[in-house]
Amino acid sequence: MEYPFSQRIGSLKASAIREILKYTVGSDVVPFAAGNPAPDAFPTKEVAQIVDEALREGAFTDLSSLTPQGYGPLVEEVRKLVPARYTPLRPEDDCLILSGATQGMDLAVKLFCSEGDTILCEDPSFIGSLNSFRSQKLELRGIPLEADGVSIPALEEALRSCPRARMLYLIPNFQNPTGQTMSLEKRQAVYRLAKEHGLMILEDNPYGDLRFAGEEVPAIKSLDTEGLVIYVGSFSKIIAPGLRVGFVAADREIIRRMAVLKADEDQAANLMAQIICARYVSRYDLAGHIQEARAIYRRKCALMLEEMDRTFSPKVTYTRPEGGLFLWCTLPDGADMADFCTRSVRDYQVATVPGTAFTVAEGASSQCFRLNYSTPTDEQIVRGIRTLGRLTHELL
Amino acid sequence: MEYPFSQRIGSLKASAIREILKYTVGSDVVPFAAGNPAPDAFPTKEVAQIVDEALREGAFTDLSSLTPQGYGPLVEEVRKLVPARYTPLRPEDDCLILSGATQGMDLAVKLFCSEGDTILCEDPSFIGSLNSFRSQKLELRGIPLEADGVSIPALEEALRSCPRARMLYLIPNFQNPTGQTMSLEKRQAVYRLAKEHGLMILEDNPYGDLRFAGEEVPAIKSLDTEGLVIYVGSFSKIIAPGLRVGFVAADREIIRRMAVLKADEDQAANLMAQIICARYVSRYDLAGHIQEARAIYRRKCALMLEEMDRTFSPKVTYTRPEGGLFLWCTLPDGADMADFCTRSVRDYQVATVPGTAFTVAEGASSQCFRLNYSTPTDEQIVRGIRTLGRLTHELL
Repeated sequence: MEYPFSQRIGSLKASAIREILKYTVGSDVVPFAAGNPAPDAFPTKEVAQIVDEALREGAFTDLSSLTPQGYGPLVEEVRKLVPARYTPLRPEDDCLILSGATQGMDLAVKLFCSEGDTILCEDPSFIGSLNSFRSQKLELRGIPLEADGVSIPALEEALRSCPRARMLYLIPNFQNPTGQTMSLEKRQAVYRLAKEHGLMILEDNPYGDLRFAGEEVPAIKSLDTEGLVIYVGSFSKIIAPGLRVGFVAADREIIRRMAVLKADEDQAANLMAQIICARYVSRYDLAGHIQEARAIYRRKCALMLEEMDRTFSPKVTYTRPEGGLFLWCTLPDGADMADFCTRSVRDYQVATVPGTAFTVAEGASSQCFRLNYSTPTDEQIVRGIRTLGRLTHELL
Repeated sequence: MEYPFSQRIGSLKASAIREILKYTVGSDVVPFAAGNPAPDAFPTKEVAQIVDEALREGAFTDLSSLTPQGYGPLVEEVRKLVPARYTPLRPEDDCLILSGATQGMDLAVKLFCSEGDTILCEDPSFIGSLNSFRSQKLELRGIPLEADGVSIPALEEALRSCPRARMLYLIPNFQNPTGQTMSLEKRQAVYRLAKEHGLMILEDNPYGDLRFAGEEVPAIKSLDTEGLVIYVGSFSKIIAPGLRVGFVAADREIIRRMAVLKADEDQAANLMAQIICARYVSRYDLAGHIQEARAIYRRKCALMLEEMDRTFSPKVTYTRPEGGLFLWCTLPDGADMADFCTRSVRDYQVATVPGTAFTVAEGASSQCFRLNYSTPTDEQIVRGIRTLGRLTHELL
């Protein structure tokens, strides 16, 4: 049957990452294409204690504290946690619990952007968010990414030439896919421009807890005197990825309307997951747990870089992240990146994500690919990087 | 600050139910306005066993079987469960796991309706779905509900006069808010009309497991030779409401595109909740558990009706549901329903939901209100109904 799908459906494609992951499920493929947190970085025993206790109390079936804004005790914890750990908030700010951080992008854009409006994005950027923006029929405009964050002249030019630019989407820490971190100077410059142009900033910080080198850089939200920044965080990287619990901090007027939108989408986030997060944060040593998780990421990233330094052709350059899950490799001009990535997965079972998956303009070219060091085992890291290293010498 | 919200935000209101529930949180109010499943109808012990075991195995942090379509083993279970319990499927059909059944309405409408299209709805109907449709800027057209389902002449007239009618939204079993069930004849008539007009049917069956009287009526999906029916079900009423796990069964082409849309919204449903559902369904006696849950609902509904029969003024009529969570009362012509509901909650702490919350045309009048019998305790049912009964004599 030929279904009469809606207009928006025509423009949607399955994510390139998901397409690649098809090759990798249940196989011997080295999973450098993945984006999962390290499985040994989660507090399994503590979560088991919480679940046991909550089940005995009947907490998971008591919906009385559950509203679209979130499970009451978790909203309270997040109101304390965000200023204590991530960024100062304004007295006018409030928080809302999300069914996964991705929902924060979805709600923010629904709140501020009408069809045909423009959203400015780092280029390259996270494909999940880009797809979410595309599915709402927004124009996407990429701002080239430099080593310390978006190019400020390019951002100024975009603001001059796009009168319908409503929002700027940024992942300032350990960006996906590049692993790069935006400098404080650029954060200040970006905020100044947003203020000048009445632009909203959507600050996505999924990896903020996973800094394993260098100095913390203040969140853009910490500069937010005017209420222009919508800050999105997540528990997925530190408590459990399957929980799909994220949070937003923003002006209370924004939060109130997000709650209405969220209620219409999925009523409220999963109660069991919210109870687990609330009790974990209030009772256990979150800071200590994050230190342990950081040590795991530090070690895995260092192992990958060490092998790359040893085995990669010097023609290939790559980022050296201070945190997060990813690093970003650039092949020399003239090299055929698509061929490189296809051969590595097809002939040698090493999966990477081609840079074309992350370009803001669909169909744009790229000389880059993304590597993940949190999902593979140490053995897979060594074996996979040696394979890629051999390929860099053979093909380039 | 005056935020430049998007066009869609102007038309959104917080749900009338949520507004009323504000009065009831943490108070002595009798919760007839609620819509929660009965708390003692859940298999708490079994869920605890599953969680313990899964945590020991590290299952909750293993994302390898999680795709936007769902957690692999749960997708498998649902593919078997739907034909075994709810409705035959076509060989071309497949299933997808939702982050709560409400998401099914959201995805179905995104898939088939473009801005300005019309969605036909039972009038009255579930406010959560109506709000979800409104937020996507669809035209809603109500089809009056009779005791055995929507009026067929009114549906025919709507199909004649609305060339942009794309979808018909129905809750055939124990409808929310009326508690009524659509007859097989009407289901057949509705399907025939859908086939004739190329209309999609969105069949929402959240309460289907909770039949406690009368005979099962085949799902509209069971008549679906052409692939026109999108069937939405849920585990919220039988395993745990806080889990927020629902499912869709539809043509595989529809499912494939829903998975892409879902990935862009929230990537995938909560893994822990999906694992709990998958293991519960595969290992425990779901049918036996549902029998026990039905007994609870049967008793609570009978208790409420018994007290109503004894204490309500004969001027008030009400439905006698064969299942589900709700019954629906109609005040006589000329009575002031809003005044009745306001007095009952403000002066006597008995919360009901005014019928105006469920009208398809916003601002339409209603002589009705909804009562829920699953959330209140037996003592609250008796006390609350006696209070309402006294009011029906005083005010009418």
